[in-house]
Amino acid sequence: MGGVIGIEGRKDAAGLVHVGLLTLQHRGQESCGIAVKEKGKDVFNYFTVNGLVLGKFTGDVLEKLKGENAVGHVRYPTSGSKSGILDAQPFIFKSAHGNIAIALSGNIINTTEVRDKLAKEGAIFQHSSETELIVHLIAREKLPIENALKKALAKIEGGYAAVMLFKNKLIGFRDPRGLRPLVLGKLGKSFVLASESPAVEVLGGHYIRDVKPGELIVVENGKLKSTFYAKPAARQNCIFETVYISRPDTLIRGMSVAQARMAMGAKLALQMKGIKADIVMPVPDSGFFAALGFSKASGIPFEMGFVRNHYMGRSFLRTTQHMREIVAKLKLFPISDIIKGKDIILVDDSIVRGTQSKKIINTLREYGARKIHFAVTSPEIIAPCFYGVNTPSKKELIAATHTHDEIVKEIGVDSLTFITIDNAAEACGGNEGAKGFCSACFTGKYPTKISKSTLEAR
Amino acid sequence: MGGVIGIEGRKDAAGLVHVGLLTLQHRGQESCGIAVKEKGKDVFNYFTVNGLVLGKFTGDVLEKLKGENAVGHVRYPTSGSKSGILDAQPFIFKSAHGNIAIALSGNIINTTEVRDKLAKEGAIFQHSSETELIVHLIAREKLPIENALKKALAKIEGGYAAVMLFKNKLIGFRDPRGLRPLVLGKLGKSFVLASESPAVEVLGGHYIRDVKPGELIVVENGKLKSTFYAKPAARQNCIFETVYISRPDTLIRGMSVAQARMAMGAKLALQMKGIKADIVMPVPDSGFFAALGFSKASGIPFEMGFVRNHYMGRSFLRTTQHMREIVAKLKLFPISDIIKGKDIILVDDSIVRGTQSKKIINTLREYGARKIHFAVTSPEIIAPCFYGVNTPSKKELIAATHTHDEIVKEIGVDSLTFITIDNAAEACGGNEGAKGFCSACFTGKYPTKISKSTLEAR
Amino acid sequence: MGGVIGIEGRKDAAGLVHVGLLTLQHRGQESCGIAVKEKGKDVFNYFTVNGLVLGKFTGDVLEKLKGENAVGHVRYPTSGSKSGILDAQPFIFKSAHGNIAIALSGNIINTTEVRDKLAKEGAIFQHSSETELIVHLIAREKLPIENALKKALAKIEGGYAAVMLFKNKLIGFRDPRGLRPLVLGKLGKSFVLASESPAVEVLGGHYIRDVKPGELIVVENGKLKSTFYAKPAARQNCIFETVYISRPDTLIRGMSVAQARMAMGAKLALQMKGIKADIVMPVPDSGFFAALGFSKASGIPFEMGFVRNHYMGRSFLRTTQHMREIVAKLKLFPISDIIKGKDIILVDDSIVRGTQSKKIINTLREYGARKIHFAVTSPEIIAPCFYGVNTPSKKELIAATHTHDEIVKEIGVDSLTFITIDNAAEACGGNEGAKGFCSACFTGKYPTKISKSTLEAR
Amino acid sequence: MGGVIGIEGRKDAAGLVHVGLLTLQHRGQESCGIAVKEKGKDVFNYFTVNGLVLGKFTGDVLEKLKGENAVGHVRYPTSGSKSGILDAQPFIFKSAHGNIAIALSGNIINTTEVRDKLAKEGAIFQHSSETELIVHLIAREKLPIENALKKALAKIEGGYAAVMLFKNKLIGFRDPRGLRPLVLGKLGKSFVLASESPAVEVLGGHYIRDVKPGELIVVENGKLKSTFYAKPAARQNCIFETVYISRPDTLIRGMSVAQARMAMGAKLALQMKGIKADIVMPVPDSGFFAALGFSKASGIPFEMGFVRNHYMGRSFLRTTQHMREIVAKLKLFPISDIIKGKDIILVDDSIVRGTQSKKIINTLREYGARKIHFAVTSPEIIAPCFYGVNTPSKKELIAATHTHDEIVKEIGVDSLTFITIDNAAEACGGNEGAKGFCSACFTGKYPTKISKSTLEAR
Repeated sequence: MGGVIGIEGRKDAAGLVHVGLLTLQHRGQESCGIAVKEKGKDVFNYFTVNGLVLGKFTGDVLEKLKGENAVGHVRYPTSGSKSGILDAQPFIFKSAHGNIAIALSGNIINTTEVRDKLAKEGAIFQHSSETELIVHLIAREKLPIENALKKALAKIEGGYAAVMLFKNKLIGFRDPRGLRPLVLGKLGKSFVLASESPAVEVLGGHYIRDVKPGELIVVENGKLKSTFYAKPAARQNCIFETVYISRPDTLIRGMSVAQARMAMGAKLALQMKGIKADIVMPVPDSGFFAALGFSKASGIPFEMGFVRNHYMGRSFLRTTQHMREIVAKLKLFPISDIIKGKDIILVDDSIVRGTQSKKIINTLREYGARKIHFAVTSPEIIAPCFYGVNTPSKKELIAATHTHDEIVKEIGVDSLTFITIDNAAEACGGNEGAKGFCSACFTGKYPTKISKSTLEAR
Repeated sequence: MGGVIGIEGRKDAAGLVHVGLLTLQHRGQESCGIAVKEKGKDVFNYFTVNGLVLGKFTGDVLEKLKGENAVGHVRYPTSGSKSGILDAQPFIFKSAHGNIAIALSGNIINTTEVRDKLAKEGAIFQHSSETELIVHLIAREKLPIENALKKALAKIEGGYAAVMLFKNKLIGFRDPRGLRPLVLGKLGKSFVLASESPAVEVLGGHYIRDVKPGELIVVENGKLKSTFYAKPAARQNCIFETVYISRPDTLIRGMSVAQARMAMGAKLALQMKGIKADIVMPVPDSGFFAALGFSKASGIPFEMGFVRNHYMGRSFLRTTQHMREIVAKLKLFPISDIIKGKDIILVDDSIVRGTQSKKIINTLREYGARKIHFAVTSPEIIAPCFYGVNTPSKKELIAATHTHDEIVKEIGVDSLTFITIDNAAEACGGNEGAKGFCSACFTGKYPTKISKSTLEAR
Repeated sequence: MGGVIGIEGRKDAAGLVHVGLLTLQHRGQESCGIAVKEKGKDVFNYFTVNGLVLGKFTGDVLEKLKGENAVGHVRYPTSGSKSGILDAQPFIFKSAHGNIAIALSGNIINTTEVRDKLAKEGAIFQHSSETELIVHLIAREKLPIENALKKALAKIEGGYAAVMLFKNKLIGFRDPRGLRPLVLGKLGKSFVLASESPAVEVLGGHYIRDVKPGELIVVENGKLKSTFYAKPAARQNCIFETVYISRPDTLIRGMSVAQARMAMGAKLALQMKGIKADIVMPVPDSGFFAALGFSKASGIPFEMGFVRNHYMGRSFLRTTQHMREIVAKLKLFPISDIIKGKDIILVDDSIVRGTQSKKIINTLREYGARKIHFAVTSPEIIAPCFYGVNTPSKKELIAATHTHDEIVKEIGVDSLTFITIDNAAEACGGNEGAKGFCSACFTGKYPTKISKSTLEAR
Repeated sequence: MGGVIGIEGRKDAAGLVHVGLLTLQHRGQESCGIAVKEKGKDVFNYFTVNGLVLGKFTGDVLEKLKGENAVGHVRYPTSGSKSGILDAQPFIFKSAHGNIAIALSGNIINTTEVRDKLAKEGAIFQHSSETELIVHLIAREKLPIENALKKALAKIEGGYAAVMLFKNKLIGFRDPRGLRPLVLGKLGKSFVLASESPAVEVLGGHYIRDVKPGELIVVENGKLKSTFYAKPAARQNCIFETVYISRPDTLIRGMSVAQARMAMGAKLALQMKGIKADIVMPVPDSGFFAALGFSKASGIPFEMGFVRNHYMGRSFLRTTQHMREIVAKLKLFPISDIIKGKDIILVDDSIVRGTQSKKIINTLREYGARKIHFAVTSPEIIAPCFYGVNTPSKKELIAATHTHDEIVKEIGVDSLTFITIDNAAEACGGNEGAKGFCSACFTGKYPTKISKSTLEAR
């Protein structure tokens, strides 16, 4: 995933991008960064750092990030396994065009082919990230920047959204299938581009519309120019953005993610009509809205049987077996008098490897749950994603390697229901209806060519 | 508040106390610390640090915290305004008895009197915290440690719970009114003392019982001795532990806090019987369980109209007015299509100054809420607490300075309902019924003498 | 050792003390701290930190250290083996007298007796340092502060110098024998107290005089009052202050330490009259001035055969034997074409364990030195110091356990000459002549009583 | 300047390079880094960091730096004004040849031309350093790496020395004029390349010879291959390496720098034959060895009138004018009783802007010096350096803008003597005699073409 934000023509550009990144933090915790450009100066002020946004951009740092145009990034390591501070975006490049700052979320799938071709022509590479490729491709075109960028983008395939600074321009673009999200918003007279709408709203701005698949947006001196660098292919929005990546308050297809998830819960309630239970409860926070929707549609009371511990992190001692077991339990704490003796419909957003679900279900059993019916708001995941969602390889996906009955047995539930692909699409369709979703991870049918080597690498 | 935990006779004592402190983090974020004692050595290994528990007790640190008996503390600054690292507990003292490590949560109300008397006798003080007083009082008694401690505790008044290490003993005690909580649990053959039950359960242990008001517990070599240092006064449990301090999964009077809060919501639903609304929604996370209870009792659908941003903190730039406004909004994000055009019953746990409530209600109005009926699960707070809850002075308490109608107007709601004292007590009573709660903050009638100077200081 | 500085009546008091501490850094690298008092406020602003002064007192920190009176400290761990941040001075105490900040360098020898007595009376202790004892003793006296302090100091024995803040006073005192140094200086209208004179001069101030043994100085509102809390005992200045502790530019007895060391070198040249050599060279930096004095007195050319590496520290990898050998060499690098084939007079300030000297002499041999005559500007050290110099126990002192010939053989020199006690005293006597030095470490005759237990602890 | 070191075929390669960097620290304090390659793996393990070497390469870091071949770098910012962590070397690149790690000290003077040409061909740049250019030039050649490197180096001009890792090779090269130093050494069976000889000796290895101007050295599996990529131009060693850059124990032309500096002092003594004085003293540490040589040649006694404060740094408060004056004095402390009433010959290595000299001379006057004759071991500096020595622009050079008499007046001395170019060359000539030095900074005659734009930029 990863998240991006850019703003044009604000004196407090870095401060605003900083706040925007805080609202996009869930899209990437590996590293973060901001690059800013002052009008009339041809250098960027920038700061990148490993880890969370909070606490890194101190007053001292923000004071140095002077300039009216700014882009920011939060990184989630999708490709490029060995990552370090050198992979923290935005990246800054000098080229014959001039200086460029770029931040990209998502994934490019023909990286190897493009990189090999460039290397043969004498290019050198310093990042494990593929974002560098785009700048190489731009630099090789002697056209004006926008045309150079269009030619460059025509050579890459994938699911991505990016923001760029060049001279006095803020530039944004989204992949031709719309796999990764990018929205356009406005704050006063300034345009804002961001991965999710709350990053605009938190600033006091408002959402205008989604950037369209294959659209290239250039903002300069408060004026916006929209062109397309690719014929819009059949739209292929990533349904996982709604299922679990995005914030509940993010608007996708004109509807909040919270509403879409409640609708998925309601669809599951229909699918599971015959099943009786005392309570519906979510795996927090991922299954929350779906469980609420299920409860309303079914009439089965909604309960919160787990407390999620938000102070937890990954950085502590697991020297003994006892300690390892403790740590596994730290994030979700059961409330015994809610669970004990109940027939439960447990709602979560997905089953990937199945290990996490198994642990949670074990804990419920320990605390006295009677029957457990597991309702899942994504269909069976049977194939890896190459467009920026960090699913593991096929052989690790439980639904790719086990039958339905085997999964039921493995994770230890009384019944298991996955939402159907159609129901998921209907629930998430919003103002554009049930069409135009990528379903590669449920079907193994990818919307782009995937090279054999890429496929086999998973 | 603050939180404490102690364990006796485990080789991994520091590691266990560390995990326990993570589950008590909500009771104090100012500083934290662990002190450990190795059998047969008369020094403590200890580490105290400002800020959150997470990330501070690295492998290197825990490795040095060798020993079988350990106590830990999370600090919330109730008294002693200017605090620094010197105030981080546990404190370590040398005395004629030997070395003592102590950690105390809560508040002692006759600090000034005791300190003045001790100072006149030549005592010197290094901490702003009152915990030091107890050790001074112990050190002045030539009796065996337990008797010395009893005599010391007889001289102080307040609401507190503490754990101590002395020679091979783990010692715990709770104030004679039971104002602050302390529970006894067991992990294998080892006894555990902690402010809340989940700190025992997370370790794989189980809750045995509450430490009784005025009880002094001494554990040595796996054996527990219980005596009383004060005649149990009329029990005066702090109802705010249930209303908002404790975790939802904590057991108080044999019932989970989550259940008690749902019961309070149900009581409020009865109090507000005539009021019509489209949805019930909580201020997250504080009003969550009460809103759920309200919804069930009233039949009005439960909705989650706010997203709470858990990545937020306090440490960032507010240089401009615009930035200050943004920051105010960062923690709670409204979901517009849930709120818009609705008549809402909004549920929260308390109104203290009223400013926070006012902001939230304003936001709801901005996002299109029609009517807002505010339901609050604590009665009107009209008097400060001197027993460890950090309420402000009387003149800052909105319910102490405004009539009901003035509050309604000030915070901008259509109606406002506080739970009655009796309903709150009934809902929170658990296996001991509606009696035995301190209601000082609702009535101004304090269970102990409060010196004039202390009263006036507020 | 350790070092102290105090200043009264300057708006930039903390900044000045900070710079003063930088010039006293050689007296202690363990921790450092500054405490400041604002007129009319009865609290101290203070900051203590482990490690070197440089880089710790940032603009942010110094800005908070508001006030006109300030004291500072650099700590060298003489007693109190397990030290932590809690032992970083200045210490801050509350007592019946009021608030006190105190910083002390040196050592108190009857710590155990005083502490035991105080503990029996009910005192409690939080620091491993003995500085706390003085405050306990003050607090027990109901007299005005100065009288209380005098009575307190009458109860302790040792070699020390201290600065204190109390109300609007800056207080300083020096042990009755003058074992540890303290000077009085003036900066504009403000008095300054410091362990060494350059700490005054660097501020643009000037040295007035040494604080006298047993003198108590109180400065308030620019006025100085001097009294004595002890009959001046026979003066017993520590000759090691001149031999190696103090800076070369420090004035002791009206003479720079550099001049005294050159005079010691000249005395050694006389003692070694018959010995022939090509060059005189120092062990840098400790033997530098003595070697220069030796060269002038003897006519043998001075050379610098070693480069001292000032970027080195202690914090690096010694995993292999090869690495350990490398690290041993890192601090002193020989210059081969200066050493090769030469008969050398090597000058250093002292031989303690002998291991360091042995390494250096080995290196000289490796690089082709022919003969090595070792000249040492302190007499044989045969007894530990209890007054603040960190010499090891008797059994580790090579001169206490080996004959002259055995030392010559052990460290591998052709001849070895220690300065005589009389020559050392004459060279260091300055404007007070050869009398009044403590020679305990050379003779084992201590100027104070030393309890059997203290003696045996070494 | 900057410094480099590389080693081939040692299991503890990173640890050794780390120690080597400590001995090269004086060549660059801006940033440092180490890159290591494990045999049979085609990735580098590397770590770069801002600031000093000491304390950065902890056990944890070194443990990750596995591999048998390693290169290291300390950076001094000669070009590329705005530098950040991205400019810390070694740089790591991917290219069609494979992965390359490179570290370069010195300066390339046709950077702009080469960069513009590459940019026109589509290259992009990420560092302000010119080291990146070499890798671009290599990557564009389809020849084997050594040939590609030779073709690349033929296109650049400047004074530099570099080390590289590629596959299992350690590669080193030095500019065709030998402006910047690089030596070849051996440690057991392993070859070492380093900027100065002590970096080899500290490891227990020994100096073999200087790398020759225009020489390309490739070491693989313990075997060394030497070729030349440029006809050796007329040798042009930078005399400033001897005058002030290098360590005193570094061997240049077979002689220690200490000896060469003493010889320069002796030459100056001859030049100043008629001048009478009581003492000769250096500006420490830069004038130390020359002052010693002057004393021996002239018979005027050597004295050390300044103490240099090694704990000082740049990072502290200068809020007031008084503070600014204090800080200026902090590094050098005068010893009054050495200076007072003396006629002094003061020796230093150079006068650049003259401001530093002026301050020192002022201080001597304040402390009572009578006459001051200033002897300088470099000729008048009248032109900037473009080969890696960080001299300022012409208009800031006092000797370029003032007559001799004006300088005497400006800095406030009684007489001023610069060493002659011939005397300097003779003193520094070592085993190769007085020829083959670059004297551009004394004459303005540069050994290479300097483009008009480069010249004008200064």
